[in-house]
Amino acid sequence: MPETARRIVLASRPVGEPKPSDFRLEEFPVPQPGPGQLLLQTKWLSLDPYMRGRMSDAPSYAKPVGIGEVMEGGTVGEVVASNNDSYKPGEVVLAHTGWQTHALSNGAGLRKLDPRVAPVSTALGVLGMPGMTAYTGLLEIGKPQASETVVVSAASGAVGSVVGQIAKIKGARAVGIAGGPDKCRYVKDELGFDECVDHRAADFPDKLKAACPKGTDVYFENVGVPVFDAVLPLFNPFARIPVCGLIAQYNATELPPGPNRLPLLMRNVLTKRLLIRGFIVTDFAAKFPDFIRDMPQWIKDGRIKYREDIAEGLENAPQTFIGLLKGKNFGKQLVRIAE
Amino acid sequence: MPETARRIVLASRPVGEPKPSDFRLEEFPVPQPGPGQLLLQTKWLSLDPYMRGRMSDAPSYAKPVGIGEVMEGGTVGEVVASNNDSYKPGEVVLAHTGWQTHALSNGAGLRKLDPRVAPVSTALGVLGMPGMTAYTGLLEIGKPQASETVVVSAASGAVGSVVGQIAKIKGARAVGIAGGPDKCRYVKDELGFDECVDHRAADFPDKLKAACPKGTDVYFENVGVPVFDAVLPLFNPFARIPVCGLIAQYNATELPPGPNRLPLLMRNVLTKRLLIRGFIVTDFAAKFPDFIRDMPQWIKDGRIKYREDIAEGLENAPQTFIGLLKGKNFGKQLVRIAE
Repeated sequence: MPETARRIVLASRPVGEPKPSDFRLEEFPVPQPGPGQLLLQTKWLSLDPYMRGRMSDAPSYAKPVGIGEVMEGGTVGEVVASNNDSYKPGEVVLAHTGWQTHALSNGAGLRKLDPRVAPVSTALGVLGMPGMTAYTGLLEIGKPQASETVVVSAASGAVGSVVGQIAKIKGARAVGIAGGPDKCRYVKDELGFDECVDHRAADFPDKLKAACPKGTDVYFENVGVPVFDAVLPLFNPFARIPVCGLIAQYNATELPPGPNRLPLLMRNVLTKRLLIRGFIVTDFAAKFPDFIRDMPQWIKDGRIKYREDIAEGLENAPQTFIGLLKGKNFGKQLVRIAE
Repeated sequence: MPETARRIVLASRPVGEPKPSDFRLEEFPVPQPGPGQLLLQTKWLSLDPYMRGRMSDAPSYAKPVGIGEVMEGGTVGEVVASNNDSYKPGEVVLAHTGWQTHALSNGAGLRKLDPRVAPVSTALGVLGMPGMTAYTGLLEIGKPQASETVVVSAASGAVGSVVGQIAKIKGARAVGIAGGPDKCRYVKDELGFDECVDHRAADFPDKLKAACPKGTDVYFENVGVPVFDAVLPLFNPFARIPVCGLIAQYNATELPPGPNRLPLLMRNVLTKRLLIRGFIVTDFAAKFPDFIRDMPQWIKDGRIKYREDIAEGLENAPQTFIGLLKGKNFGKQLVRIAE
């Protein structure tokens, strides 16, 4: 066990795009577990778009990370010392210990992982929060019916990739939106979406329309404006729009120039009887047993595929996260903290 | 029975605010019922904001009125001649025969009205489509809970007035938005809302905020931008927004100037997990038995009050409708076509 642990704290609240100087790498002594506690060594850190919200003190559904505090995040860790009867050294757990190499826990909120069932990193992706987000948002809000068209943005990402594949399992047509030809090829050829459209293409709105000859019944929103503007004209009556993320808007410091398209949206809501609903995964915590029944089976049957994008070392987490917000990742973004 | 009937047809599609010249008054011979038909003489014509949509050929949930066709509308009529065994002269029915003094019917879609139960005009208002719109939109989408705050715009109108009173019946706090001090006084003092705020007041957003000290859990949308802009900052997490109408937007010929507030709305949808859902009354047709059980009882118990604004004569329908779109009516707008 190393004598020194490392962590990344929030140094300052970003204005617009986060800069490396908004983060600070600190060393600290490896803490020793007290009574009932255990010490976790982080193996995997998950990087997710929601973390941009935690860096800001604008009102949101969760309180922000404080200046000088460890950046929040889901982790997979190994128990390296324990004064807790429920956990033994060598066990691997899903935790939420943030951007650091070591952390203490009293055991609350941990979930043991069995490496023989699935690679433990999947507990941060397809079998974890992003997979569950896709599963609940699509099935509880989107409710795709056979032969309907489901459009999903950020389609090669941790959430979007699962959304489209579940849509296919439910008999719907899946149309992805992704950034660049490589991601689009992957979404269509590897994941089995019916189509995938590159939002960077000059004629993106026309291409999206062509990919949805029967309109759009479900739009799973991960990115926000301006991609949303191309989807809006395609909605069929009674379309459902689960709003999961708005990654293209997170770094914005002001509203875009006019015209004001809010009245246009509301007109569509009224005349097409749209349903728009924001959610976060914990809103549907009661569905976890369903998720953990279906998803491993779908993976085993080859009906759900996933891809991980792995960065190496805690010190690279800030730059990797900055890239994630710009769509530089390809698949679920992880940071390997320790072998 | 007069020899000559009259009707108002759509003369041209309005650009922006409808003008009197967009309508044309025509005379035609009173039609004679054929086999199985009956002749209705219109007593009451309902004027409703949705009619603006029917004058336009922009895509919507119903097909537009054709140029030269009779303007669409709900009516109460008296059977004056009948070759239909189910209807006798002298009976009064709810119909949808539009802006005309006489019309034939084969009986389909008619509902007999009993003048001893309620004034027959209420079948076009509190006991009809507007009342049912309020009832279903609030209870099926808004779902107000005791001690929550329900905000409703166009609060003195046919729909809004019922929304706030049902909110009170359900134990919620009802806050109305209306145009001008007379309407606000009526909404608060006569209808029993907790507060009513004048959207024409210079400090309207501040006054609305003060009227909602615990935020807003349900916003029943009847008017659209710019009133919506004042409500948006007040939403509590998990607020519900039934979108029933957008009367302030119906005459718009272009989008308002920037900034583009659509991303702001979507950010609120996400961080507050808002639900926005457009609807029209027929979406909830299955709830009619509940409505017709509850509403007459609530009126009898004095828990639901209503107000009618009555114009006289078919020839005044166009000008009255133009005024309705500007909020000149005070209560449910009707036109008396015949005594």
